[in-house]
Amino acid sequence: MISLITLLTDFGLSDGFVAVMKGVILGLAPEARLVDITHTIRPQDIREAAIVLGRTTFHFPKDTIHVFVVDPGVGTDRRPIAAQVGPQRFVGPDNGALTLVFDRARRAGWPVEVVKLDQPRYWRPEISHVFHGRDIFAPVAAHWALGVPLTELGSIISDPITFPLAPPERTPTGLRGEIVHLDHFGNIATNIRADDLAGWETAAVQVQVRGATVHSLVATFGERAPGELIALINSAGELGVAVVNGSAARQLQAQVGDPVEVVRTASPDA
Amino acid sequence: MISLITLLTDFGLSDGFVAVMKGVILGLAPEARLVDITHTIRPQDIREAAIVLGRTTFHFPKDTIHVFVVDPGVGTDRRPIAAQVGPQRFVGPDNGALTLVFDRARRAGWPVEVVKLDQPRYWRPEISHVFHGRDIFAPVAAHWALGVPLTELGSIISDPITFPLAPPERTPTGLRGEIVHLDHFGNIATNIRADDLAGWETAAVQVQVRGATVHSLVATFGERAPGELIALINSAGELGVAVVNGSAARQLQAQVGDPVEVVRTASPDA
Amino acid sequence: MISLITLLTDFGLSDGFVAVMKGVILGLAPEARLVDITHTIRPQDIREAAIVLGRTTFHFPKDTIHVFVVDPGVGTDRRPIAAQVGPQRFVGPDNGALTLVFDRARRAGWPVEVVKLDQPRYWRPEISHVFHGRDIFAPVAAHWALGVPLTELGSIISDPITFPLAPPERTPTGLRGEIVHLDHFGNIATNIRADDLAGWETAAVQVQVRGATVHSLVATFGERAPGELIALINSAGELGVAVVNGSAARQLQAQVGDPVEVVRTASPDA
Repeated sequence: MISLITLLTDFGLSDGFVAVMKGVILGLAPEARLVDITHTIRPQDIREAAIVLGRTTFHFPKDTIHVFVVDPGVGTDRRPIAAQVGPQRFVGPDNGALTLVFDRARRAGWPVEVVKLDQPRYWRPEISHVFHGRDIFAPVAAHWALGVPLTELGSIISDPITFPLAPPERTPTGLRGEIVHLDHFGNIATNIRADDLAGWETAAVQVQVRGATVHSLVATFGERAPGELIALINSAGELGVAVVNGSAARQLQAQVGDPVEVVRTASPDA
Repeated sequence: MISLITLLTDFGLSDGFVAVMKGVILGLAPEARLVDITHTIRPQDIREAAIVLGRTTFHFPKDTIHVFVVDPGVGTDRRPIAAQVGPQRFVGPDNGALTLVFDRARRAGWPVEVVKLDQPRYWRPEISHVFHGRDIFAPVAAHWALGVPLTELGSIISDPITFPLAPPERTPTGLRGEIVHLDHFGNIATNIRADDLAGWETAAVQVQVRGATVHSLVATFGERAPGELIALINSAGELGVAVVNGSAARQLQAQVGDPVEVVRTASPDA
Repeated sequence: MISLITLLTDFGLSDGFVAVMKGVILGLAPEARLVDITHTIRPQDIREAAIVLGRTTFHFPKDTIHVFVVDPGVGTDRRPIAAQVGPQRFVGPDNGALTLVFDRARRAGWPVEVVKLDQPRYWRPEISHVFHGRDIFAPVAAHWALGVPLTELGSIISDPITFPLAPPERTPTGLRGEIVHLDHFGNIATNIRADDLAGWETAAVQVQVRGATVHSLVATFGERAPGELIALINSAGELGVAVVNGSAARQLQAQVGDPVEVVRTASPDA
């Protein structure tokens, strides 16, 4: 059986910190297969880590181990944890980065088991105060991949940290949500999901964001001319706003947290 | 037998889109080995994708599958394709990104077989309108790697899209070509190939670009002092212009498409 | 046995140069496992390559082969080399990039064996003047991984190039060193090692850099408030200066080479 281990950090790619974690993993579990999710999470941005973990990890095969290290509390009393969340496994600091992963499990009715890592025999012999990715999370992931059971790695806890999720609100005319992610293309993603718009006619919708109004939803980019502002359901099943062959984030000067209104119009909107 | 699959996209590295494709591939073909070509193609820049595919893919072992996703037409009626081009295999949108790959096959006399992907049993069960990399190209690559024959994946077509290639023109004094690529170092590559200069004396050549004139060709960077502008044959066998330990692109404010003149002088040029 | 090969270059990630090296390696050694250390070394910056190689490579399993290509002298008479340095293996140009690796071996008392690569039968058949990463170093690494002995790959040499290391100096009040690295977070690393401060009381220390003074060392970031300037021992065992959840490099406009003073105070410092 091939063990798959992914890595998500805010370490960047210039210094070799990620490579050091890979070296430690492969020293213990030489057969493990490694995949990078991303290493350009904004430094210390736990919410961005949570968004990317929520979008990506459930596309991996069963029992893939996802190591996440966005860890402003490294070396303090924040707990190191490991978690089995439905079909996926996670190892990292207990700081809220699993919020959307846990939310997905709740919606899907999946079992969740979380342990506080407290068994130093599965760590490196010396633990620095500032690089638990190398000294705790990488070796724990390797041992888990080698077959050590979760409950050997640590003691079960029932209170992992999560941050409050702000679902979109119903308004008299539709929904009010917010921007949750801006991607590499400058596409805007919101916390309004396709499910929230179930039964709405896509032509009878207006989306308002940063003073701009988009009339009706399209299915894909190529339906409109380059440069046009569009609204659509993105590949994560969320309401998105984009500029065809351009950057909506730049054009609208959008930021994560900015409000987004969806207005349901009486009839197809010109 | 180990299956090798490469990925080239304009997705960037920050959002995990590439990782999602890898998760899908490894869910179907757990033994596949994955290599990134690049994920920083300029958004929607099919020509840059074509240049990089042409330069890199033929250095891979026989039957490597190259998944390319620079796909402004995703979700429209642009065709998804797979192609066996001599020793290499390709999966992606039919939009011209294989132009230089097909040109290489033509020059080498290699057989080319292209299919339109029209067998949804080799795709993910639900196809988004905006992420065929995940929903069509990744699973098709995995099935191809697992041994499904090309003609099972789709129906043969004979008219894949290519864009016109502008070869350099002969002039009374030499050749006129253009800049085709600017690399990470700021080295300039042109569409003039070493073959085009066969028999020319390297000392009896002038290269003119962006108002600058370089006298004679050198074999490598270290022949001149740091900061000096040089012309040479690059590692892809093309005429290049560079600044020793510097950036010719920045120094000359060069852009892809800018004209380049090569003048053959009567005698070695000072 | 699984062969592990890492790659460190200044090639960047946009052009596919690294992928070409991987294609060449996997064509010869299909079972080799590849790990990227970094590809964003500043162009031609041999010292930065040396720093990153020194920090990362000894975390890899025994006999990992580390290919490094920061190579301003490519195609000149600079020698291509391979080296067994204690438990690790290295392949690249002889230009000083192994200085810190050799220094580590000297401190650890490890054996070192270096050869000049002079056996073209282990290279690609045609050698370009400008891309020895592809034409010499990648195939040599593959052949070494396949079991060719080091002394078959080349002839033993005893004078690989190193650059002088400036250790910190003792001063009447403490130590004077310099900045050796600025990482992705903007954390400053110095050439002053934890060993140099052995026996010093961490509360009775002042660190002076770029006109700022930090009083006492902390164990980790979370001991101070976001935005505060701190000094600590970093994960490489070096004295570091950082801003909690911020960038010390940016805040202090620090550069590699800037002086750093450590002053031992008579009593715990407020």
